[in-house]
Amino acid sequence: MNAIPAMNRLIGQFEKLPGIGAKTAQKMAYYVLSGDKERAKEFADALNAARESIHYCAKCHNFTDREICDICADKTRDSALICVVEQPGDVETLEKMKDYHGVYHVLHGLISPLDGVGPEELTVKPLLERVANEDVREVIMATNPSVEGQTTALYIAKLLKPFGVRVTALALGIPVGGSLEYADAATLSSSIENRREI
Amino acid sequence: MNAIPAMNRLIGQFEKLPGIGAKTAQKMAYYVLSGDKERAKEFADALNAARESIHYCAKCHNFTDREICDICADKTRDSALICVVEQPGDVETLEKMKDYHGVYHVLHGLISPLDGVGPEELTVKPLLERVANEDVREVIMATNPSVEGQTTALYIAKLLKPFGVRVTALALGIPVGGSLEYADAATLSSSIENRREI
Repeated sequence: MNAIPAMNRLIGQFEKLPGIGAKTAQKMAYYVLSGDKERAKEFADALNAARESIHYCAKCHNFTDREICDICADKTRDSALICVVEQPGDVETLEKMKDYHGVYHVLHGLISPLDGVGPEELTVKPLLERVANEDVREVIMATNPSVEGQTTALYIAKLLKPFGVRVTALALGIPVGGSLEYADAATLSSSIENRREI
Repeated sequence: MNAIPAMNRLIGQFEKLPGIGAKTAQKMAYYVLSGDKERAKEFADALNAARESIHYCAKCHNFTDREICDICADKTRDSALICVVEQPGDVETLEKMKDYHGVYHVLHGLISPLDGVGPEELTVKPLLERVANEDVREVIMATNPSVEGQTTALYIAKLLKPFGVRVTALALGIPVGGSLEYADAATLSSSIENRREI
């Protein structure tokens, strides 16, 4: 079986996908080659079509098939409020909430010196340009509350300071519907520190 | 985001893969479109190359890029001993054992009336033709010990009977290194019924 170069090449491609190991990659390759021969063609066509039509929005760097994505082009949204996220999936997640009416900026990663990812690898410069050239009132840092996420948020906040723009971060605390019993010490400590009037 | 047709089409393709849900499919689509633009092209090329060069072996119906697969073409293997399996991955699994020196026959599925899969959807007819035309001594039914697997094995065994060929099935019992404590009743019962002299 492993003597088929085209099969190994395809399995290798599936293995590169996030969260996919050798065994699952093989299953996937077998699946697309089994049964209907058109399966692999449809898949390849979908990949090529996506690659040709989808690129980053010139403003927010989210995926789009136009020059400016639907969210950035939406005149009813508050373009003076920018929510900075790590990846396109985060925009999707925040949009589901339907409560946010500002725009976004997708970093496409987090600063992580150990992985060799510095600010130059991210869309930090385009963000600064947006803040410098557009009428921006507030930037919400919505990176994950991990070490890399918080480092990135603090780094960008520092760069944004000279522009006199308000920089905020998502509240850290006990999840709605959660239980004190299962909250970790860092979350509890943050929820006490950031306690609110009721 | 969901307003991009090419993205939805690509996510849909990933979702068709075995074991992949909507969320993972989206992650995969984002992955191939993120960063290096060549990722999607390489993936599509690998799919097309595999589709063009890989087909079923004319004898055993396993995947191959030649007319006859390496195992069937191997003169040192015992072509009078055929091991019948559900899918190409099973050949891979059995080959890892390195103890089997016969050839294979891949059914590409199991009989499952509820899913609308009958013997015509499988490679049952080519198997009967092999047994009729080649010098076959024994057929080992190595389908999974599930309801469908055992039904398929019994069905094929019945069809093979008139050819006067020996039909066997894999032994069912306690796994080597396993523990009686964790064996289910059906496995234990089978291991007692098929007990061997020591």
